[in-house]
Amino acid sequence: MNKYSIIIGQSGGPTAVINASLQGIIEEAYQHSEIDNIYGALNGIVGIITNQIIDLKKETKETICLLKNTPSSILGSARLQLPLYLEDATIYQHIKDVFERLNIKCFLLIGGNDSMDTCLKISDYFSSINFDCHVIGVPKTIDNDLVGIDHSPGYASSIKYLATIISEMHQDISCYINGKVTIVEIMGRDAGWLTAGTALSSLNNHAPDLIYLPEVAFDINDFLQKVTKIYHQNHCVLVVVSEGIKDANNEYLLQKRTFNNKDDFGHLQLGGVAQVLAEIVNQTLNLPVRSVEINIPQRCASHLASKTDIDEAYNCGKNGLLYAMAGHSGKMVTMIRNKTSKYEICYSLIDLKSVANKIKTVPLDYIDINNSNISQAFIDYALPLIQGEEQINYQNGLPQYAKLIKYYVKSYK
Amino acid sequence: MNKYSIIIGQSGGPTAVINASLQGIIEEAYQHSEIDNIYGALNGIVGIITNQIIDLKKETKETICLLKNTPSSILGSARLQLPLYLEDATIYQHIKDVFERLNIKCFLLIGGNDSMDTCLKISDYFSSINFDCHVIGVPKTIDNDLVGIDHSPGYASSIKYLATIISEMHQDISCYINGKVTIVEIMGRDAGWLTAGTALSSLNNHAPDLIYLPEVAFDINDFLQKVTKIYHQNHCVLVVVSEGIKDANNEYLLQKRTFNNKDDFGHLQLGGVAQVLAEIVNQTLNLPVRSVEINIPQRCASHLASKTDIDEAYNCGKNGLLYAMAGHSGKMVTMIRNKTSKYEICYSLIDLKSVANKIKTVPLDYIDINNSNISQAFIDYALPLIQGEEQINYQNGLPQYAKLIKYYVKSYK
Repeated sequence: MNKYSIIIGQSGGPTAVINASLQGIIEEAYQHSEIDNIYGALNGIVGIITNQIIDLKKETKETICLLKNTPSSILGSARLQLPLYLEDATIYQHIKDVFERLNIKCFLLIGGNDSMDTCLKISDYFSSINFDCHVIGVPKTIDNDLVGIDHSPGYASSIKYLATIISEMHQDISCYINGKVTIVEIMGRDAGWLTAGTALSSLNNHAPDLIYLPEVAFDINDFLQKVTKIYHQNHCVLVVVSEGIKDANNEYLLQKRTFNNKDDFGHLQLGGVAQVLAEIVNQTLNLPVRSVEINIPQRCASHLASKTDIDEAYNCGKNGLLYAMAGHSGKMVTMIRNKTSKYEICYSLIDLKSVANKIKTVPLDYIDINNSNISQAFIDYALPLIQGEEQINYQNGLPQYAKLIKYYVKSYK
Repeated sequence: MNKYSIIIGQSGGPTAVINASLQGIIEEAYQHSEIDNIYGALNGIVGIITNQIIDLKKETKETICLLKNTPSSILGSARLQLPLYLEDATIYQHIKDVFERLNIKCFLLIGGNDSMDTCLKISDYFSSINFDCHVIGVPKTIDNDLVGIDHSPGYASSIKYLATIISEMHQDISCYINGKVTIVEIMGRDAGWLTAGTALSSLNNHAPDLIYLPEVAFDINDFLQKVTKIYHQNHCVLVVVSEGIKDANNEYLLQKRTFNNKDDFGHLQLGGVAQVLAEIVNQTLNLPVRSVEINIPQRCASHLASKTDIDEAYNCGKNGLLYAMAGHSGKMVTMIRNKTSKYEICYSLIDLKSVANKIKTVPLDYIDINNSNISQAFIDYALPLIQGEEQINYQNGLPQYAKLIKYYVKSYK
C-alpha cells in the first residue's frame, strides 16, 4: 500500500467550533494506516508558502481531544486572496512543490466563502497540471451565509451564545421601573442570520422587542414609532440590529468608522450602527438609551458552544477527509437536512464553483416584516441547531483549552 | 409563639447571583414556623411605597430553586435616594405604616453601597421611633467595592465570565499573522476590581498584555510605548481598561458620552474609553485597532456563574435572615476569609454606618504598576472565588430561568 500524507489549513474568521473540524480530520486520519503524516499549515495557505508547517501527529491525543472546546483557529488563520493561476502561477507552483516534497495527496481547508474561492483556485490549478492531490473545502462561518448547505458549522454556537446572552440582558434591563432603550448590535454584513438567532430567546420568554436584519430596508420613522410605543408600554425596549442594516436607498445606515474601514478583501468594516441609532433615539425621542455591541465574544464563546454544532463541525472534517481519500476534489463538504420530523443531517459534497464568493441571505419568510421581528419558520429552522451542551473541563475555575506544541517540519530545502 | 412576616427587596445594579441571596432568605424562612408570610417588595423601597408587594410563599418551590441560576433582580430594582428622615419623614412613616399593617418584623434589602445607605436610614428611623422591625443589608455588587467585606457576592461570577471571555477573545485575536491592537473596556467607575479579574485568564495562558485600573494614573505615552513594543513582538496586543481610568490630573480619560451622562445618583456614566484609546492608537501609531466594550453581559452572565459565588450569595441571604430574626438591625452581612491555607469564609455582621456610601479600591500591592498588569497577590486573592460551576438546566437549548407569577398583596386600604 502506498503511503501518503495529508495537510490541513484554517482560513477566514474564527468560530467556536472550527477546531472541532480539525479534530474530526485528525482523528479520522488516525484510522487509516495509509496516511503517513498529518500536517498542519499555519495561517492557511501562507504557512505552505512560508514553510510554517507542523506535524500534528506529534501532538498528544489529549491535546487533540481538547480541540472541540477550543475557540479560534488553532493553526492560525489567513485572509489571503490568490491571483488567478492563468495570470500568475508562482504561488500555485510553490504549493505544488511543497505538496510533492511532503507527498501530500489530500489538502483540506476549513473556511468560509473566501476560503472556498482559495480551494477552488488551487484545485483548478492541480487539475490543469494533472497533479494528483485532492482539495476539499470544509465549511465554517458564524455568518451562516454559505450557499448549498443547510447551515454552516460555527453558526449554531454563535446563536446559542447570542440567544443566551440576550435572554440574560433582557432580564437585566427589565429590572428598573424606568428602564432604557437598549440597542444591541450583532455581526452580519450582508446577511442577518446571527441577528435573527437572538429571536430564539423567545423560547424562554426573554425575546428582543424589535429585530432588524439587512435583508429588509430599515425605516427610521417606523423604528422610532415602534420604540416609542413599546417604551410607553413596558418602560424599556430591547432592540437588536445587524451591523449591516441598510435604508431604502440600499445604503448602509452607518459608514461611521473613520479608520481601518476596509478589510483585506476590500469589504467595508462595519460596526457602530447601534451607537448611531442610540443617538437618534435620544435626540429624537428624548428617551434614556444605551448601545451595546456584542463584538468578538459572539464568534469565540466556546464555553457555551452547541453540542450539535460541535458534532457537525467534527463530522464535516471527518467526512471531508474520507471524500478526499476517495478521490474527490474541487468540492466542499455540505450538510443536507433530512425531511423527517426528527432533525437529521446527512453529509454530502457540493461543487466549490457553486459556493465560492456567494452569499446566502435570510429568506423573507423567516422575517416578520410588519412587526420588525422573526417568524416561526426561522425558529423551526434554527432551534434544532442549538441543542445540547458539551461537557467542559474546568481548571482553576476556567475552561481548559488545547495548546499545540507545534513541531515544525521542513517543506523545502 | 407570635407569628410575624418578613419582607425582602432588591436594589441597585443587578448581578448574576443577587437572586441566589433572595433564594437563601426564602428557603431559610421556610424553616421557621414563626414566619407567617414572606413578602417581596417590587423595585425595592418603591414597591413598599406604591403598594407593589407580592406573596413569595405562593410561588412554587421549583421557581424558588431556579433563582440561583437567574440573573438580574427578579423582584425589580430601584435607584431611589431617600431624604434624611429629620428633614422629611413622609416616606419613612409610609414604610412603617405598611410594615405595621403587614406585621413585618424583618426587612432585608439586597444591594450595594447606595442600598446600604437606604438600609441605614430606615433602620435609624425605626430606632428613633422605637418601631420593632429589624433591618439587615445583604451585600451584592459586581464592582467588589463594598468596604468591610472580603469580597462582594456577584463579583466572582462577573470575573469568572470576564476571565473566560478574555481567554476566548485572546485566542480569537491571536490567530492572524498581522493582528490588531484590541482594547477591551470593563465596568468600574472608581475601582478596578472587575478589570483586574481579567488577569485570571493568565492561568490558562491567555492573559491580556496590558491592564489599566483607575487606581493608577494613566500615562498615555507609556501606554503607547508598551503597545508599540508588544505589537512588534507578537503582531497583536490585548489591552484591558477600566471605564474609569484617569490621568495624572485625576481627570477621567473620557467624559465622552454626550447624552445621559449622569445616573439617578448623579454619578457620571462612563463608557467609551476603549474607543477613544483605539482612535489614539490608530492615529498616533498607525496600527490596526479595534475597541470592544463588554457592557451588560459582565453583570448578568449567569450561564457561567461561579458556584462559590452562588453559594456565598445564598448564605449571605440565609444568614441575613437569621441575624434579623435574632434581633440585629442596622447591620450588613459580611464575609470574612479565614486565615487558613484552605479557602474558607465565615459570615458575620458589620455596622451599616461603616459601609454605606464608601468605596473600597484595589490595593496597590495587587497591581504591577511597572508592567501595567496585576500582581500575584491579586491572583491569590481572586482565584478561590471563581471555583466551581453550577449545573444549569437547559430547555430548548437555552438556560432555564425562574419566572415569578407575582401574587400581589394589599399593604394598605
